[in-house]
Amino acid sequence: MSILVVGSVALDSVSTPFGEREEALGGSAVFFSLAASFFSEVRVSAVVGEDFPNEHLRLLASRGIDLEGLQRRAGRTFRWRGCYDYDLNEARTLETQLNVFEDFRPELPEKYRDSEFVFLANIDPELQLSVLEQVRSPRLVLCDTMNYWIENKRDQLLKTISRVDIMLINDAEARQLTGEPNLIRAGRSILHMGPQRVVIKKGEHGVLMIGPDSFFSLTAYPLENVFDPTGAGDSFGGGFLGSLSRFSRLDEDILRRSIVYGSVMASFNVESFSCDRLCELAWEDVEERFREFMAMTRFA
Amino acid sequence: MSILVVGSVALDSVSTPFGEREEALGGSAVFFSLAASFFSEVRVSAVVGEDFPNEHLRLLASRGIDLEGLQRRAGRTFRWRGCYDYDLNEARTLETQLNVFEDFRPELPEKYRDSEFVFLANIDPELQLSVLEQVRSPRLVLCDTMNYWIENKRDQLLKTISRVDIMLINDAEARQLTGEPNLIRAGRSILHMGPQRVVIKKGEHGVLMIGPDSFFSLTAYPLENVFDPTGAGDSFGGGFLGSLSRFSRLDEDILRRSIVYGSVMASFNVESFSCDRLCELAWEDVEERFREFMAMTRFA
Repeated sequence: MSILVVGSVALDSVSTPFGEREEALGGSAVFFSLAASFFSEVRVSAVVGEDFPNEHLRLLASRGIDLEGLQRRAGRTFRWRGCYDYDLNEARTLETQLNVFEDFRPELPEKYRDSEFVFLANIDPELQLSVLEQVRSPRLVLCDTMNYWIENKRDQLLKTISRVDIMLINDAEARQLTGEPNLIRAGRSILHMGPQRVVIKKGEHGVLMIGPDSFFSLTAYPLENVFDPTGAGDSFGGGFLGSLSRFSRLDEDILRRSIVYGSVMASFNVESFSCDRLCELAWEDVEERFREFMAMTRFA
Repeated sequence: MSILVVGSVALDSVSTPFGEREEALGGSAVFFSLAASFFSEVRVSAVVGEDFPNEHLRLLASRGIDLEGLQRRAGRTFRWRGCYDYDLNEARTLETQLNVFEDFRPELPEKYRDSEFVFLANIDPELQLSVLEQVRSPRLVLCDTMNYWIENKRDQLLKTISRVDIMLINDAEARQLTGEPNLIRAGRSILHMGPQRVVIKKGEHGVLMIGPDSFFSLTAYPLENVFDPTGAGDSFGGGFLGSLSRFSRLDEDILRRSIVYGSVMASFNVESFSCDRLCELAWEDVEERFREFMAMTRFA
């Protein structure tokens, strides 16, 4: 099964109470595709500059990730600098250099156009739409966004949301998008915008999945050491869509199982800086943590 | 099975974004015993003043709650005034009048001394200890506390904690008691103080139960309308200990099942002011919500 992601490939400089890292591999398309690569073939549509280290490309390729749609353009790679305080739930952005990302126009290679599963990571909703117009008949489209687009491109964002199957959004953004402080109502309100499901990420408090007649709530994995939350949401998306892509039908049970896989991948990702932990994982680690999720939430 | 609670009986004046209520029935012993009364016989050790309305006593008695240990003293009943903002997780105390509660010394009627299950609600840890010394051989002691005692009577509190089976505490208090910002580590640290389990209440984010070799995480019930969070923790305690009291053995499965019943009772309690919702509940409502908890958390 083929998964397409459009998003950012970045060099991240991050500091947390536990250390810091300069110009490490990051970006939504990177975290997503590494997490999804445990489940399926992944294709990336993104852009990097001339300065992007080849070792990062080799790393992604070594996970079987298809980079034909990764444009390399004159100029510098997208850079993000952020920090986290002890409340690791929220990043403070110190600097964003769009660089080559500023003029990014996703152009899908011909073979990407039959992708069955699509993740529209957090980019300009107009670009998200342009990707949807290039994919022939996806089975499922998952979409993320952020406060900036909610504020500045609301109409375009609503148009994108009306065309996706599942909206992935964090709690603060769900409240901002709908003007509804209660998260359950905010979720239901997003369903009225078009998607079949809304998945609300609550960081250390877990995740909700709300459908027209369904409600699923999963706690987060109890981590004693969170090093760097950067990429948690995109790793979640990668595990979630990766798992979904392995099933021929998509019912509530499969969706729930996939929410757990998303949470598994996110929990690993935050255990170290950049995507270090995702890169050293074995499939047995993933299955083991899935079983731990079961063990810590079951009751009779 | 007999459950003893020692705690406060109060007249609460509460305002929330959804309304307000003056001098309504409240207090930890009230919320706890109403919730527990759905499961077992409950005995109350507390104090009220001459001004305490008889209708409240009749209400408690109508739920089969034993009031022999409820002292009535000259003076005014304990009063609490608080308010909540839209973030309903935290109460702001506007006024506390201890009144007759200031000189409260729990003296258990002879028949209370064989109580098998004991809830030491949030009162002075010296009084909690004095109750433990009056009960002959309880099967299980559950203990709550608050920031005031952690700050001002730490040594006495640690002595109480060392003698209880299960510590019930909210997330901020767990961090304060242990000096550990990470909640999982804070929980493990409390286990080293003596209890077999620590139950950490996280308000709208659910509850954790941590044992030496066990970890259980339960999400909160998704409420679209929270009217008044006052008494949620004590209602939780009542459902939890009430459920436990119905089993002859106390293993992890029974503890988890009881955590869910605690969450059920807390979720009902916050749906209206004071204990209005607990008072109008039927057992079928409790069972129905237990099933909803199962439905919204299960995955395969």
